[in-house]
Amino acid sequence: MLISQSTLRAFTQNIFLAMGCSQEHATLAADVLLQADLRGIDSHGVARLVGYVRLWEKKRINPKPNITIVHETPTTATVDGKAGLGLVVAPFAMQLAIKKAEQYGSGWVSVRNSNHFGIAAYHALMAVEKDMIGFAMTNASPLVAPTFSSERLLGTNPVCYAFPAGKYPPVVVDMATSAAANGKLEIAQRLGKQVPEGWIQDATGNYTTDPHALKNGGALLPLGSDREHGSHKGFGLSATVDILSAVLSGANYGPWAPPFVAFLEPPNDPVGMGLGHFVGAMRVDGFRPLDEFKIHIDNWINRFKSAATIDPTQKVVIPGEPELEAEAERKKTGIPIVDAVLDDLNGLAGKFNIKPLTP
Amino acid sequence: MLISQSTLRAFTQNIFLAMGCSQEHATLAADVLLQADLRGIDSHGVARLVGYVRLWEKKRINPKPNITIVHETPTTATVDGKAGLGLVVAPFAMQLAIKKAEQYGSGWVSVRNSNHFGIAAYHALMAVEKDMIGFAMTNASPLVAPTFSSERLLGTNPVCYAFPAGKYPPVVVDMATSAAANGKLEIAQRLGKQVPEGWIQDATGNYTTDPHALKNGGALLPLGSDREHGSHKGFGLSATVDILSAVLSGANYGPWAPPFVAFLEPPNDPVGMGLGHFVGAMRVDGFRPLDEFKIHIDNWINRFKSAATIDPTQKVVIPGEPELEAEAERKKTGIPIVDAVLDDLNGLAGKFNIKPLTP
Repeated sequence: MLISQSTLRAFTQNIFLAMGCSQEHATLAADVLLQADLRGIDSHGVARLVGYVRLWEKKRINPKPNITIVHETPTTATVDGKAGLGLVVAPFAMQLAIKKAEQYGSGWVSVRNSNHFGIAAYHALMAVEKDMIGFAMTNASPLVAPTFSSERLLGTNPVCYAFPAGKYPPVVVDMATSAAANGKLEIAQRLGKQVPEGWIQDATGNYTTDPHALKNGGALLPLGSDREHGSHKGFGLSATVDILSAVLSGANYGPWAPPFVAFLEPPNDPVGMGLGHFVGAMRVDGFRPLDEFKIHIDNWINRFKSAATIDPTQKVVIPGEPELEAEAERKKTGIPIVDAVLDDLNGLAGKFNIKPLTP
Repeated sequence: MLISQSTLRAFTQNIFLAMGCSQEHATLAADVLLQADLRGIDSHGVARLVGYVRLWEKKRINPKPNITIVHETPTTATVDGKAGLGLVVAPFAMQLAIKKAEQYGSGWVSVRNSNHFGIAAYHALMAVEKDMIGFAMTNASPLVAPTFSSERLLGTNPVCYAFPAGKYPPVVVDMATSAAANGKLEIAQRLGKQVPEGWIQDATGNYTTDPHALKNGGALLPLGSDREHGSHKGFGLSATVDILSAVLSGANYGPWAPPFVAFLEPPNDPVGMGLGHFVGAMRVDGFRPLDEFKIHIDNWINRFKSAATIDPTQKVVIPGEPELEAEAERKKTGIPIVDAVLDDLNGLAGKFNIKPLTP
């Protein structure tokens, strides 16, 4: 079913309001989810709404967080999200980073005591709107095994780097540091298909193509898939995200990161508070006049877009391009919502006495 | 042949002095190369010395650079390396980043008009010595094809993230953003062995296991190897390094990056000056009291070191650990120099009238 973004946005805001969020937070949180759906990242949009509600029901999400700066220098800070939605905590942190960058050239904020923050690109793009380079990353529920380990010790720990451009749209690198994201396994499970070797291992650490292996005690593999193809690099990137987001802020790191699913309890020996994020902003004109940078990044984009391809039906994809194409399309036609998600959303409508979504 | 680090260091300094470097620069440049050899990164140590000399002979390396800050805010700067050795330009940039971080919490420096900077870890570890988190990256000679392309448009573009620890040594993630580094191909070439599928493609873009394919117009593959296993992520990381190092500083980016080998001329339509780097430093205590951070990063390291492994003969390797083990060993026993490198070094000794290295 296709639902217009305005209908879906209003519905989502109403759910957050029903959870007790302020109007400002409900509007912002809905905007973060809707941007994921518009950009075609269906796994991180309204499909997650039922998950946030379940965490709120378990009192693991605080709908009225008094988000606080707990440590600060002119260009660095640590923020306590007070168990709020990452969807509102991360934008608070990024606003702070941008304010510091406006004054001093750059700003960097580590965040503790937060929850799932949606798509990293939303937060990094806040900086791009100010002609800054944006950085955003987060740790996440432990699902990934380090190279040589049978244990799930890291999340898919995504990282986003976003750069403003001139006549072209921004360059937005937004990626999980695992070989494949969990959402891709879920698709294979629904379709009853096998997944490629190199995405997951089973509970004993053997490579498998069974998409159900993750549920059965297996683990996702770091980017690189195996040692010979650089999985230690994917592990290193994921470790970097974990340390910047959680060890630096005082959040839970590694296997202590609280699970997103409400049916799993967080570890009873926490090493910090909630989930962690790390965001940053650097003014482009802190390095080079903005117009010069824009001329050269446009030239960079143009060169890569016009690169010779192996197969004439393929093209070199500039990071961020597919998401913008999805956004242009979905703004016109609406957002496709699969039946299972529609059922979840209308279940929430019933719970909160809100008008359900109809075709 | 094993050569003591002091002998090799003195020899290397003498070569740089003979090129016309100041005593200070010769000492520093030799230190960067020796640290690579000590850490077991043989491809980036004195084996490169003959390459630097050849570039100097072609007047592409300036032995007496007046390294200059060309643009600046309190926490950002762009440095012009004046075609100097990256081995001295990058430490200049990192010193500046550290100075800014001391005053404002963080410092970020983009560098243009430089040359190969040795191992990224050297520069990032300068920050760690000050209880800061260090970042270092560089673009490099184009050898890597973006996903779907048959063209070599990016270097192996390494990136290093380094974190101080407490009782444990620092966590040092230092990695090429390609599936395999060029040095691994060279080893396979010497041994007459095939390389694993997923490292390289031939000139038409087909995967190949022939280690000579790169020389014959092929390309290295981004981390992830193919689209299904996330090569677009490796491409995105490499693009990020290229943009931060070169588009931001005014260096040559993408296929315009000057080749390290002196027998290849740089493109005759440069889009900037020389190679680019990007370095940064953030004070740990800009986010959290240092002692707290050290307790938790030690706990992080300890948890990962003690992770269950798939095979009892393997262990989870903390990033930076193998290099430190090599350093401890080689400081005692000396640095192994293969015959081909010894011949190169003694060729330089002859050229500059310096006492040759002997067993």
